[in-house]
Amino acid sequence: MKITALDIWRAVEEIRGKAPLIHNITNYVVMNTTANALLAIGASPVMAHAAEEVEEMVAIAGALVINIGTLSDKWVESMFKAAREAKKRNIPIILDPVGAGATRYRTETARKLIKIVSPSIIRGNASEIMALGPEKGARTKGVDSTALSHAALDAARDLNKTHGSVICISGETDYVIDNNIIEIRNGHPMMSRVTGFGCTASALCGAFAAVNSNYAMAAAQAMAVMGIAGEIAVETAAGPGSLQTAFLDTLYCLTELDIEKRLRVFILNN
Amino acid sequence: MKITALDIWRAVEEIRGKAPLIHNITNYVVMNTTANALLAIGASPVMAHAAEEVEEMVAIAGALVINIGTLSDKWVESMFKAAREAKKRNIPIILDPVGAGATRYRTETARKLIKIVSPSIIRGNASEIMALGPEKGARTKGVDSTALSHAALDAARDLNKTHGSVICISGETDYVIDNNIIEIRNGHPMMSRVTGFGCTASALCGAFAAVNSNYAMAAAQAMAVMGIAGEIAVETAAGPGSLQTAFLDTLYCLTELDIEKRLRVFILNN
Amino acid sequence: MKITALDIWRAVEEIRGKAPLIHNITNYVVMNTTANALLAIGASPVMAHAAEEVEEMVAIAGALVINIGTLSDKWVESMFKAAREAKKRNIPIILDPVGAGATRYRTETARKLIKIVSPSIIRGNASEIMALGPEKGARTKGVDSTALSHAALDAARDLNKTHGSVICISGETDYVIDNNIIEIRNGHPMMSRVTGFGCTASALCGAFAAVNSNYAMAAAQAMAVMGIAGEIAVETAAGPGSLQTAFLDTLYCLTELDIEKRLRVFILNN
Repeated sequence: MKITALDIWRAVEEIRGKAPLIHNITNYVVMNTTANALLAIGASPVMAHAAEEVEEMVAIAGALVINIGTLSDKWVESMFKAAREAKKRNIPIILDPVGAGATRYRTETARKLIKIVSPSIIRGNASEIMALGPEKGARTKGVDSTALSHAALDAARDLNKTHGSVICISGETDYVIDNNIIEIRNGHPMMSRVTGFGCTASALCGAFAAVNSNYAMAAAQAMAVMGIAGEIAVETAAGPGSLQTAFLDTLYCLTELDIEKRLRVFILNN
Repeated sequence: MKITALDIWRAVEEIRGKAPLIHNITNYVVMNTTANALLAIGASPVMAHAAEEVEEMVAIAGALVINIGTLSDKWVESMFKAAREAKKRNIPIILDPVGAGATRYRTETARKLIKIVSPSIIRGNASEIMALGPEKGARTKGVDSTALSHAALDAARDLNKTHGSVICISGETDYVIDNNIIEIRNGHPMMSRVTGFGCTASALCGAFAAVNSNYAMAAAQAMAVMGIAGEIAVETAAGPGSLQTAFLDTLYCLTELDIEKRLRVFILNN
Repeated sequence: MKITALDIWRAVEEIRGKAPLIHNITNYVVMNTTANALLAIGASPVMAHAAEEVEEMVAIAGALVINIGTLSDKWVESMFKAAREAKKRNIPIILDPVGAGATRYRTETARKLIKIVSPSIIRGNASEIMALGPEKGARTKGVDSTALSHAALDAARDLNKTHGSVICISGETDYVIDNNIIEIRNGHPMMSRVTGFGCTASALCGAFAAVNSNYAMAAAQAMAVMGIAGEIAVETAAGPGSLQTAFLDTLYCLTELDIEKRLRVFILNN
């Protein structure tokens, strides 16, 4: 297994060429920036959460991204409905368990989704992944991680083994856990001062999974692109406001050379 | 009938002077950018969707903008409630049928709204307008158009004839269909890489309709201002992120000269 | 009582050091920019509105910010639930009565919240505060104020006396009313052309109240920081779009010197 700049670039080109529809059932905070990031990378985002239409919408989608950041009962119902339909149709499902560990409602909803639909990819920060593992993690403080990424590796391995999902832990170093562990060392700390970059990462996992059925590879490619675009954007940003703006510009303008020059990815044994 | 830079400019000045309240029942993705665009052009936006208050809110508004981009049952109920009250009070109603053609729920909700309240202006992309016409259009892929604007002219003519609504098809070329066809050739392709510019266009139709009861004229003026502001913004933008920012700056700073220099509008026989 | 640049600066440093969790039950329009402003100042925002989880979430928060900008029945229910729990745990509650006076639903919801939970701080524009006072204010036009800040002083004094809440009236001049009246003359008129700056101010009141149990002081510090960051941001902004971006950058980069050079705050007798 190898992650090369050329493969990432080809995936970006495929997304730009095919513009896969990414169906998001996500939180209110990040809907705008998520849609913009998907458009900037070349995908076609749609947000739809009504029970009346999620099955029909997901049926024409290249991936389904479920994000529990501002969940409530009706939305959870639709998440299950959409996920079951996606499962049936073999459409990749990405789960972002925002705030798992902060409240029982979030932890249990995420656990139930994982159990019933075994998502293709689960992407969260270390606290969230630990909250979903077999041992009870330290309680999350809201939606920001209080733990380092590598601390969640055991929980990730267990989730992967039990449910078959590719697990992606994002943080200063990102990890993608499947048969191997892929370590991605791109990104910049200022990214944690912009709301929704984690959610954007999950949505990009969706875009890459829509064109690559090797979901570990797709997740690693998405995380590398997130990190590289973030690094480039930070260079011109005066703070988190302009970072968000520059990040979208960078995604849109991303070149093969950008990836080649910056990619810092390593394969470890699991 | 003529669309002149001076008339558009006078309408902009009237919006800035009167700051009409624009009541939006719109989707979660674009609420922030829609409100900001309305503020930047000089209007006063309000978002209110509770059945408990929509009638009271619309009663003090200069226009009602209904956008089905993230619809669900309670919201649809409120859309009808607000629209009926607006109709009764002769307040212009703008409908944005986001994603019509992608799911039955969206197509049917849009059709029902059109039938019951015959909106003053319906603004959508070609796929959406075709989905609402008498012949079944090709199925829309999510919310992005898969058809060219002029392909929807027949459906638009039919909608206009049957319901009396001014129809606005937006795309690379925009069309406003009523007794004549107005063709607007402003804008820039990069605008399609920013989420919600279509929704912003509908909201601006509301602002112009609030100061001009010739709704075909109001729609054409709004589309021209959208396109012109977009063109100017693209000149300083490094990508879709900075385009959104520069677009709001440009709307706020727009001058008569900007309009005069760039306006590309043509009246065709219908 | 004195408001000094040094005290404000120490509060900012305390927020950056402790990153208090701020639980927001707020409106759809501003969720993204509110979260970003809280992150930029150094706090840790969370948005959670489900009845199933608000009590658990607020229990780990440093402050609860309730904003009725796009209220509906379920959300109102959760606001009360969260507020009661916060009250019980002595966690500061900030209320932003967006659009009070525009519809009965908003006015009554705000009044009821005030009566039952007596918020630590109520922050609104002049029209909103007047609508909540004993005399019926002129009817608000949507969510933008139609009155000057000082016109609302009587209503504010009455609210403060009756419910013990610190009242903050924002506008060209901001007032914080408690035992004294604190007048803050920072800020810039262009800020009124960006949606959600008022809501951001309320959220910052939450961040400052999380590290300072003198809520009048906390509110005054938050308003000063808002105004100062806005002034600095306007200097590089080309319009309201870039103002929003620069504002977040400025909050993130704010220094003691920025505050010292610009602070314009005055204590008046109440």
